[in-house]
Formats: sequence, C-alpha cells, structure tokens
Amino acid sequence: MLINGNEYKSVWFEEECVRMIDQNKLPFAFEIRTFQTFEEVSEAIKDMTVRGAPAIGAAGAYGMALAVRQAPDKNFRSFIRKARDFLISTRPTAVDLTNGVSAVYENALKFIPDTVHAKQIAVLAAIEFAHKSEEDCRRIGAIGQEIIPDGARILTHCNAGALATVDWGTALSVIRMAHRKGKRLFVYVSETRPRLQGARLTAFELEQEGIEHSIIVDSASGFYFWKNAIDYVILGADRICLNGDIANKIGTYEKAVLAHEHKVPFYVAAPLSTFDFTCNHGQDIPIEIRSEDEIKRLGDSYLANPGSSALNPSFDITPARYITGIITHRGVFRPKEAAQKIQQ
Amino acid sequence: MLINGNEYKSVWFEEECVRMIDQNKLPFAFEIRTFQTFEEVSEAIKDMTVRGAPAIGAAGAYGMALAVRQAPDKNFRSFIRKARDFLISTRPTAVDLTNGVSAVYENALKFIPDTVHAKQIAVLAAIEFAHKSEEDCRRIGAIGQEIIPDGARILTHCNAGALATVDWGTALSVIRMAHRKGKRLFVYVSETRPRLQGARLTAFELEQEGIEHSIIVDSASGFYFWKNAIDYVILGADRICLNGDIANKIGTYEKAVLAHEHKVPFYVAAPLSTFDFTCNHGQDIPIEIRSEDEIKRLGDSYLANPGSSALNPSFDITPARYITGIITHRGVFRPKEAAQKIQQ
Repeated sequence: MLINGNEYKSVWFEEECVRMIDQNKLPFAFEIRTFQTFEEVSEAIKDMTVRGAPAIGAAGAYGMALAVRQAPDKNFRSFIRKARDFLISTRPTAVDLTNGVSAVYENALKFIPDTVHAKQIAVLAAIEFAHKSEEDCRRIGAIGQEIIPDGARILTHCNAGALATVDWGTALSVIRMAHRKGKRLFVYVSETRPRLQGARLTAFELEQEGIEHSIIVDSASGFYFWKNAIDYVILGADRICLNGDIANKIGTYEKAVLAHEHKVPFYVAAPLSTFDFTCNHGQDIPIEIRSEDEIKRLGDSYLANPGSSALNPSFDITPARYITGIITHRGVFRPKEAAQKIQQ
Repeated sequence: MLINGNEYKSVWFEEECVRMIDQNKLPFAFEIRTFQTFEEVSEAIKDMTVRGAPAIGAAGAYGMALAVRQAPDKNFRSFIRKARDFLISTRPTAVDLTNGVSAVYENALKFIPDTVHAKQIAVLAAIEFAHKSEEDCRRIGAIGQEIIPDGARILTHCNAGALATVDWGTALSVIRMAHRKGKRLFVYVSETRPRLQGARLTAFELEQEGIEHSIIVDSASGFYFWKNAIDYVILGADRICLNGDIANKIGTYEKAVLAHEHKVPFYVAAPLSTFDFTCNHGQDIPIEIRSEDEIKRLGDSYLANPGSSALNPSFDITPARYITGIITHRGVFRPKEAAQKIQQ
C-alpha cells in the first residue's frame, strides 16, 4: 500500500525481526514497530497494533517463526507447542490466526530433532503463508472489481483494507481495483465503534488512494438504505464456515439484514486463510468479548456514565442466507459452496 | 426526576427566567443554567444544552414566553413573529418545538393590542404546555408499563428519558414505571453516536433509578437480536405523522428493521406534542444534518481521519409498518390510528 508516497505492507519479516505498522496510532501518527520475540508479537496482536483477520494471520505466522527460533534444543517440542497455543489464544474469533500459526508450527515439527533446519524452515513457512495471503488479496481485487459498475455507491464496515491484510485488502482490494480501472465510486465508511477502524483506517486508506468517501456513524447506514443511496455492501470476514455463515466485526449482521430488506447485494471478500474447514456453522464460532473500557473510555477520560457497565462483543455472526456472494481469489461463490470451491 | 436524591425537571420557569439542566455536561458534571432572553434559549436548543423532542418543545414554549416579554409595545406583533420563526428554526426535525413555540405565540397574539396581558398569558401558556407534556409522560409510563412483563430484556436508543422531556420520559417512563411496579428488567442502552446520549444520559438515569442495564455500541444490537436476548424495543420519537411513520434519532430505523426480522415488538412512546397533524408521511419530515465535527472530533482532538468528510444526519424515518404500537397518554395504538385516536 502507498503511505505518504512509499510502498508498505502491514506486517513483514526483516533482519531477523517482525515489523508492523502501528495501527493504534494511525492516521494520527505513522510508526513502524519491531518485535524480536513471539511474546512481543502476541502482545501486539492482543493490543491491536496489528488487526484485521488476514493481517493477524500473517503476524501469527511470523510470531510462530520467532518462537521456533527462540526454542531451546532441549524441550524444543514442548516450547513451540506452548508458544503455538499462546499465540492462538490472543484473539479467538479470526481463524486466520490459527491457520497462520499452525502452518508454521506444523512445518517446524517435521524437522525435529533437526532444530537448525526447523528454525530455517519456520521463517520460510511464515513468509510463504504471508505471501500467499497477499497474493489472494490481490486476486480478490482483480476478480471482485468486475462486479462493481461505474458510479457504484458502496457501504463498507470496519477496515477490510491493506492494513487488515498483508497488502491490498479484501473489501478494499475490490474497491481499490475498481477505482484503478477508472470507475467512479462513492464509499460510505461506517466508523466502527468502539475502536473506530472505519473512521481512522479505512478513511485513511481511501484518502491515500484518492477514492471519494464519507464517514458515517454506524447506525446511519439504515438511513442511506432507506434513501436508496447504497448500491452494494462489501466487507471482510474473520471466519467463514462450511455452510457459508461468517463472523465479522460487530455491526456486520445489522448491515446484512438491512441490505436484505432493501434487496441490496451484500458481498464478503476473504482469502483462503479466513476459511475454517472444521467449522460447520456460525453458532460454533467463538465471539471475542473485549474490555468495557473500549466503549466507556477514550484515553483517560470517560465517554459514558462511569457507574454503568458495558457489553463489548467484538464480532457478530451473519448467516449465509443474507450473503449474496463470497469474493475469493478463485472467483465469486455463493456462501454455501464457497468452502468447497476454494479447496478444489 | 431524582438526581443525587433531589427532584428536578429538565427545564422550568423560575424568577422570570428559564432554567435548564445542562445536558451537554451530564453525567460528568451537574449544572443548572439560567436564560433571560429568547435568543439565549435558542442558542441552548441549538447547542443541545436541552435536547429530546418533548423537552425542546417545553424549552421553545418558555423561550417564546421570554420573547413576548422582551417585545417592545411598538412593533410588538412583528417582534414576536420574528422570535417565533427564529426559535422554530433552531432545530427542524422535532415537531414538539414548533408546537410549543406556536402554542405560546397564538395565545399572546389574541391579546394584542393589550401587551401587558399578552405578556402575562404567554408565561401561563408556556407553563401549561410544559405541564401538559409532563402529565402526558407520566401517563405514558402508567399505561405502557402494563405491556412489560417481569423479566423483560428491553433495547432502547438515545435518551427518551426524563431529561428528554419535562419529566418522567417517554420510553424511560415506561421502563421506570415497570421497575417501580417491582418488575425485574434488563435494559440494553445503545450508546447513540455521535453525541452519546444513550451512554451518557440514559445510562445515568437508569443508574439513578437503580435499573439493571448495560451500554452497547450502536451496531451491537443485531448481535443480541441474533442471540434472542432482546424481548422488546422501546424508544421515543421526534415527530409522528398521520400515517404512523415516525422520525427519531439516527439508528432507530435499523433497530426497527432488526426487530421486524426477529419478530420482536417495537414500541414508540410519545406525548401529544410529538404528533404532527399536518404531516401525511415520513418522507415529508425534514431531517436535520448536523456538523461533521460531531463525528470527527471530540473536543480539540480528532477521532477520525482528518482529511475525510463525514455525513451527519441526526434523525431517520421509520415507516409505520415496522412499528408494533405507539404508547400515548390515551393508550397504546397501532401506528396508523394513533394520530386519530389521540385527538378524540
């Protein structure tokens, strides 16, 4: 992605370290952070220095590679197994994290007791995982942009952009590629409380790309559906089940129901790493409940009545019947057939 | 309403002045402000020192009474007409404002050229308007609480509480009275971006009343509908049309569509002053568009990407077909018949 005219990825491996754009600081400050241990990477995933399902998948893969490098020859196997479980436990909903961490772990495991080779292969496996994810996202854009006509008014939610992936984005890859094809677009960016990834990150990416857009509060999308001012909904996913149900950022389900009510096409864009081939339906997906302080406070000051509690589910489930299609690197599929098609 | 153990109204007339609780400061500070001119009252309505349709109706009535008192004998008629138009123009969506201002204006007009009597009657008319509105709200609670069973889990939006009215509230009057009858309740308080009237004011009122509740972000209600964890939606209105369409705080329409999809009863509670007997349907209601800074900034700092625009409609329209019933001081009516029934 271009930031201030330079090309970046959200997360990468360089000089034996994992590097990430600090997404908690954007768009107000642009800082690159460097991590030398898997524990530091775990913390960065947890505190959302890196966020977005495909991006934390890649961060998890790189974090696992660091763990393999940290592992002592004695207790190598138990060290990396504990590191794997620790990394995966940082955030429960996005399956990309499990997929990224596991890909590296399984590869390293094969070389035991040759730990020197295991350490080399771990880094290569992480780079390969991240590269595949990035390539999926590029193709999602190329394929998905064909759906979007000139003049389309698109609603997106949260940040399914280059920042949420290794590069390109999922939903924003589609929008980016349509824009680069010369199509005129207008994007409604729902701000995405409580952490405002839409207002901060999606708006920032669209501005950098020169795509026309406006931020709205999360509950204003209904008004624009009612005015017939939204032609498409396109957003990302944190997990896609075998039956086509998806988990995504809290608020996705509301937009799906509204799109359904207004007969507006509702698309989900996701790389292979977001599919969970062990999960039958949405009810089986664990929903992360984050701290109430994300809702009640901003920095040191209260936004809400201090004496009240808050409930902060970070994700919701959108059943397959509300989804028009899932945009993948292999094509656009009906939700019920996507998991099958993508494995072929 | 009880605040820190003392009884208050949101707006009242005392010692030749209009007094209001400053709702921009709650719940972080409790301050009473005093206004001596209709221009000051206009400003307080515009900057949302007082907000909530029935409360700004009463504030408008009191403001008009001040205007009549300010009017010079020479040009009395044109002065009060201009003051009327000025007061009404402060906020376009809530019809209570027009109704409150007009009630006082029409009464004063009758006494011209006896301006001494006009000035006396103006204050009495304003007090009567506010008292009627308060009494409506009390009865809304007494009637509406009968709908609510023990153990009900209720979603409300924005603040339709005592603060939004002269006293008691509309939706919160129902909830308050059900609680006082000993029914166990749980209230989901949607925070209501951009100005957080739910998180600040509704949560504050429920805490003061000792009613169990939690704040959620606006787009989380879909998740709780999906979990079958919401039994009722009850909220207020800023204008009710002859056909039963309503305008209310942005986000209301989304909750109505979700309630409809999940077959959850959706109730609107409102006093007589919120009915617009000249308005046939929702498309005719003017929607106030407020400053993008309400979305993009908090005090001096940015919440959103500074280079992006924001769209800030303050209200949306909910068509009558999504509304189970309108709770009034005369009873609970189907939306299509409410305007007719309330006039009988």
